[in-house]
Amino acid sequence: MAEKAAPSPLARTVLQQCVGARLQIHRGMVIYVCFFKGATEEILPKMVSALLSLRACESDSGRLVSVLDLPGSILLVPQATLGGKTKGCGMQYHGNIGKEDGLRLYSHLVTLCREGLRDGAAAGSGAGPERDGARVMVQHGTYGNRQVLKLDTNGPHTHLLEF
Amino acid sequence: MAEKAAPSPLARTVLQQCVGARLQIHRGMVIYVCFFKGATEEILPKMVSALLSLRACESDSGRLVSVLDLPGSILLVPQATLGGKTKGCGMQYHGNIGKEDGLRLYSHLVTLCREGLRDGAAAGSGAGPERDGARVMVQHGTYGNRQVLKLDTNGPHTHLLEF
Repeated sequence: MAEKAAPSPLARTVLQQCVGARLQIHRGMVIYVCFFKGATEEILPKMVSALLSLRACESDSGRLVSVLDLPGSILLVPQATLGGKTKGCGMQYHGNIGKEDGLRLYSHLVTLCREGLRDGAAAGSGAGPERDGARVMVQHGTYGNRQVLKLDTNGPHTHLLEF
Repeated sequence: MAEKAAPSPLARTVLQQCVGARLQIHRGMVIYVCFFKGATEEILPKMVSALLSLRACESDSGRLVSVLDLPGSILLVPQATLGGKTKGCGMQYHGNIGKEDGLRLYSHLVTLCREGLRDGAAAGSGAGPERDGARVMVQHGTYGNRQVLKLDTNGPHTHLLEF
C-alpha cells in the first residue's frame, strides 16, 4: 500500500442509500460514523448539514435528492473500524478518538440529526416529521456495541465524506 | 467540510465482513472498489494481496483472520460513488478513472482475487477452493451497472483501504 502523507480528517462517514435497513428504518440512508482524535462538538453542525443536504438519495423519479427532500430516515451506525490503518495484515486504530469522547460526540450527532430531520421535514411541507404519510426517523446503533445489520439496497451508492 | 490538501490514492476499497450477501456469497467479505485516474495494472497485485490477507474476518472462535484463513468468499462490488468529492450539496467524480480503463482493471482484479483465493485455499489445506466443506468463491457485480445488494452482517466492521 502506498505510504503517503496522511490526511488528518476529524471524522469519517460512509453513506449508502438503502431500500430498507432492519431493525431500523425504511427508506433513507445508512451512515457509518467514526471520529478521530481531536474531533470536538464544533464539527458536528457542519457534519449534520452536509449529511442531511447531500443529494445522495434517489427519488421515485430517479432524481438525486437529499434525505431531507426524499423524505427519508437515517440509520446511524458507529463504526470505529473506519478509522483503522493497515499494519501488516492487521488494522491499527491509534488515530481514533477515545471511547468517552466518541460516545459524547456520537450522542450529540444523533440529537442534531434528529433535530435537523424534524426541522427540515417541517420546513419542507409544514407537516412535521410525518410527510407524505411516511414517518421519517433517526435510528442509531449503540456506541461501542456490536451491531447486527441487515441492509437492502437498490444500488449501494457508497459515499465517503471526511470532516 | 474542511478543505485539505487532497491525498491522491489510485484506488479505494471499503470492506465489510458479512454473514451473507445475496445473490452471491455466503460467509466472507464484501469489497466495494473504486479506481482513480492514473491507476494501472501495477497496483492490482498489492491490492489483492492486502485484501486477501487482511485480518478483517471473525472466525468461529472470535479471532480475527483473513478471508483466506476463514476460509470465506468474496463479493466484489464496483462502486464509482466512492471516488466522489462533495461540491455544494452534490457529488463530483472528476478524479475517477475512465469507464474503459476502470472496466479493464476491475475485470483483472476479479481474476486476481479468484486466483489468490484458489491458491490460498490450496496452500491452506491442500483441498482446493472447497475447504471444510465450504465452497469459497469470488462473485462480483457488473461494472457500470446498478447492483441490487442485500447484506447481512453480525457487525459490519467497515474498513477503508486506499492504494
